[in-house]
Amino acid sequence: MLISELAVQSGVPLATVKFYLREGLLAPGTATSATRASYDEAHVRRLRLVRALVEVGGLRLAAVHEVLAALDDPELPQHDLLGAAHDRLAAQVPAVDQAALDAADAHLARLGWRVHPQAPHRRVLARALAACTAVGHPVDPATIDTYARAALMVAEVDLASVPTTDRALAMERVVIGTVLHEPLLLALRRLAQAHVSARLAKR
Amino acid sequence: MLISELAVQSGVPLATVKFYLREGLLAPGTATSATRASYDEAHVRRLRLVRALVEVGGLRLAAVHEVLAALDDPELPQHDLLGAAHDRLAAQVPAVDQAALDAADAHLARLGWRVHPQAPHRRVLARALAACTAVGHPVDPATIDTYARAALMVAEVDLASVPTTDRALAMERVVIGTVLHEPLLLALRRLAQAHVSARLAKR
Repeated sequence: MLISELAVQSGVPLATVKFYLREGLLAPGTATSATRASYDEAHVRRLRLVRALVEVGGLRLAAVHEVLAALDDPELPQHDLLGAAHDRLAAQVPAVDQAALDAADAHLARLGWRVHPQAPHRRVLARALAACTAVGHPVDPATIDTYARAALMVAEVDLASVPTTDRALAMERVVIGTVLHEPLLLALRRLAQAHVSARLAKR
Repeated sequence: MLISELAVQSGVPLATVKFYLREGLLAPGTATSATRASYDEAHVRRLRLVRALVEVGGLRLAAVHEVLAALDDPELPQHDLLGAAHDRLAAQVPAVDQAALDAADAHLARLGWRVHPQAPHRRVLARALAACTAVGHPVDPATIDTYARAALMVAEVDLASVPTTDRALAMERVVIGTVLHEPLLLALRRLAQAHVSARLAKR
């Protein structure tokens, strides 16, 4: 297909497609003349993935390059590939002190969760716990345990929806499911709070 | 106590305490001389609540005034009081079209959740669902149901931690629990994803 058709099929504006080509985020098409190239279905899928990484995941171009290099490395097991993408989706890795990290690790150990020491969300968890303590409302272990059970239920369905055969589609799914389902979970939590509160008020 | 002690006890900087007094967010102390006033424990608690609303909840001063007026209205049932605070904690109520709202309402009806039509998070849910559909990954009902079950577990512990006798403390708890526990839930979800992914990779 022509580059214009590629733009239409992928839903990515033509100027953006050209930009991704210049930046090397999309492989060149097969030249059919001095000024024309032909693109195929693989280009459509790569474009959708790049757009998901940039627009949904908020990744910078350097991070997108890293993720795509991991994707194109056939030696890399899918778990490590998805982990590499997943870790880069942490918007901000907060600076936390050792005491806060130790507190978070104690919870993770109690839960029996195996988490890489470099996982950015170990620090995000430590920061979230420290913020509650700082305003005089520390989170008790029973609350963490319930939140963790809920998080595990959600993670199970998240992972179940990731295809095991198509690495590019799997990565797209991880990026979209991780980032776009966050507002979904938060909205449902707030609506559930309203629902439970109304039920309690009726007693 | 003196205003300087009030600042220390509440952990709010003196300049901020004076600002809240000028803005009418904190009742004046009892005058003990022409230039001095005495403050009590009620002032400390009100200050902590105002700080939670402003710093944690991100509420504008006009919204803080509304919430405090609701708090000081003894006729208002606690459920409506907390609902008023809760609804104002929606950072942004997105504009969504009727089709997106109808889709969200269909899920809420299936779940049997009673939600006020004006609840801001009905629109946040509609927007989150529409965003997934827009990138070609619509959320299926089974996924929503699991997310909703998880959200309900979390909401039950959230509400259980809200005291029923002290309205000011209840409101502080709602604000802090609603806002500060969000990063906690999201961090745990991402850590759970890593944990489940590692488990699946081992098979």
